[in-house]
Amino acid sequence: MAHRVFNFNPGPATLPLSVLQTVQEELLDYRGEGMSIMEMSHRSKTFGALVQEAEERIKRIMGFSDDYQVLFLQGGATAQFAAIPLNLSQDGKTAEYINTGSWAKKAIAEAKKLNKPYRVIASSEDDNFTYIPTDFTIGSDAAYVHITSNNTIFGTQWQEYPDTGDVPLIADMSSDFYCRRFDPNQFALIYAGAQKNAGPSGVTIVIIRKDLLERSPEDIPTILNYRIFAEKNSLYNTPNTFGIYVVNLVMKWIEDQGGIDAIEKVNRQKAQLLYDALDASEFYRPHARKDSRSLMNVTWRLPSEELEKKFVEEAAANDLVGLKGHRSVGGIRASIYNAMPLEGVQRLVEFMKDFEQKNG
Amino acid sequence: MAHRVFNFNPGPATLPLSVLQTVQEELLDYRGEGMSIMEMSHRSKTFGALVQEAEERIKRIMGFSDDYQVLFLQGGATAQFAAIPLNLSQDGKTAEYINTGSWAKKAIAEAKKLNKPYRVIASSEDDNFTYIPTDFTIGSDAAYVHITSNNTIFGTQWQEYPDTGDVPLIADMSSDFYCRRFDPNQFALIYAGAQKNAGPSGVTIVIIRKDLLERSPEDIPTILNYRIFAEKNSLYNTPNTFGIYVVNLVMKWIEDQGGIDAIEKVNRQKAQLLYDALDASEFYRPHARKDSRSLMNVTWRLPSEELEKKFVEEAAANDLVGLKGHRSVGGIRASIYNAMPLEGVQRLVEFMKDFEQKNG
Repeated sequence: MAHRVFNFNPGPATLPLSVLQTVQEELLDYRGEGMSIMEMSHRSKTFGALVQEAEERIKRIMGFSDDYQVLFLQGGATAQFAAIPLNLSQDGKTAEYINTGSWAKKAIAEAKKLNKPYRVIASSEDDNFTYIPTDFTIGSDAAYVHITSNNTIFGTQWQEYPDTGDVPLIADMSSDFYCRRFDPNQFALIYAGAQKNAGPSGVTIVIIRKDLLERSPEDIPTILNYRIFAEKNSLYNTPNTFGIYVVNLVMKWIEDQGGIDAIEKVNRQKAQLLYDALDASEFYRPHARKDSRSLMNVTWRLPSEELEKKFVEEAAANDLVGLKGHRSVGGIRASIYNAMPLEGVQRLVEFMKDFEQKNG
Repeated sequence: MAHRVFNFNPGPATLPLSVLQTVQEELLDYRGEGMSIMEMSHRSKTFGALVQEAEERIKRIMGFSDDYQVLFLQGGATAQFAAIPLNLSQDGKTAEYINTGSWAKKAIAEAKKLNKPYRVIASSEDDNFTYIPTDFTIGSDAAYVHITSNNTIFGTQWQEYPDTGDVPLIADMSSDFYCRRFDPNQFALIYAGAQKNAGPSGVTIVIIRKDLLERSPEDIPTILNYRIFAEKNSLYNTPNTFGIYVVNLVMKWIEDQGGIDAIEKVNRQKAQLLYDALDASEFYRPHARKDSRSLMNVTWRLPSEELEKKFVEEAAANDLVGLKGHRSVGGIRASIYNAMPLEGVQRLVEFMKDFEQKNG
């Protein structure tokens, strides 16, 4: 039996053990084809069918209609930060961004760098991003509205998505992709680096409403052109074939668990358990405001940096790893993505109680 | 024992069996860390050391000095086709391209699309890219010279690289990366999608002479900016961690085989065996001119398309798969990258003789 820890890393992150076991079993000979999935042509029938299966699962799990297309791209959110203004800017219109943390800021900085008209219509920077702003107005000249649905570093998450009317709503869902049910029709485009909730790093999932594809201009880098990749069903060039294979297995795992509602139920149990433990204690101080708490990344401080360091070290010695917070917040961050079992959070909460008793 | 075929696919392509076995063994628990390499933070010490090891191996194998930096990027050659003109164009200068086939044409088309000054200084399109042009002049105002060192589709390869003097020479080595020794100092930049000779798809190796990094402008997409990724040692954002891990194993495999000279020796044996078989036959007609033949992709025709179809089917039934030629050339293409064992080519040549006897 392989030694396995509970891995609270923010990303790349823990994957379902059954998915890893399938990858391991199939690694030298993918389903009788006599080669690894890594060695298989992306132009083969087998791989073409695999891409289609992965796309269909992604649409089916959340109920995306055929008005939407799934793309598998490369470059993570960083590539999307550029692709969005390059593809979706419109003459006479201004892109709108909501600033809820480090990743939102990077998205904004990229629109600025590429000289596309943009404005920030709301921000929670005034309180070190402890909350999701709710007071803002969408301009009638907005090209699109961009939000970051979950803020990995600060541990905040949009509880309800804004109604942007006819203005396309775009969400970076990298750190909460498919963690709960949402209405697909609210969005014109969502994107997610796979490495938190959907697979290994190096593959980016984009779900785009097909009417937006008309906006892509000719004179932008081909690798960032949504229309070209949509026309070729993600196979314009060689994609990250292994990554797409694992994403498909993770999507199958979601379906095998009972679908998105079953996943959401466990995610809410895990988060509740952890937030209840934090709220019951004076020793631990949660960072995010209660009305903005994330189901995926839970952030908190201890009375001193010394204790925080000790907490991280002792947790790791107990096979609870990856708990060090990001330097922007400090303290502790527990990333409890879909693949983190309830048992992992139970073990963490037990450890927290024990640690408080000894050090509180 | 896993069933394994001889895989002549042009890319993604066959990998060394020992590499795949290591991946399989380590898949659930990377060297005692209690998690898969896919689940490990790219900011961890372990992964940081792995990236550095991979970079050092790549430099050491070919003898690149510290004037050069290795980058692991995403998006394949398609991303580099854009990154090169975006980063390396210079005011008042013109980029020069040599057109030796489909991939060279795509590189040229991207410079045009992005409105960067360029010119094509030589082409072998007049004879359906059967040869590498040798008659051309480098302009004194050249920003760089771009070549495609091996042409996967047509089966041609530069035998000697051009002397471009002070003008930076850039080579797309996607399909012949580290197949033979070359003088690193000839090049200002080489790049290769890993999926032919270096690993799985989804990771691009770039080796850049550091003085070129000064050219990268501010206002280009961050994901395509060489300078930013060089400053962060390929970890500006989350790279394809699994892909880099496999590339490192493949580089270790090259060293274990005896290094680049040992690899080249076997590659020359394999190619000689196959070209000798083609030259000894009237039945098979090689596509590439003798003075431009590739060590990596061998292309030929049969007397009829019907026989070509039969050849591909019967070969596959004999566990020799992936031999169908690209539609631009037709016929047969055998991709015999580093990881194709001599035995695979021996088996192919036996099959060819047998097929000719029965159908010639």
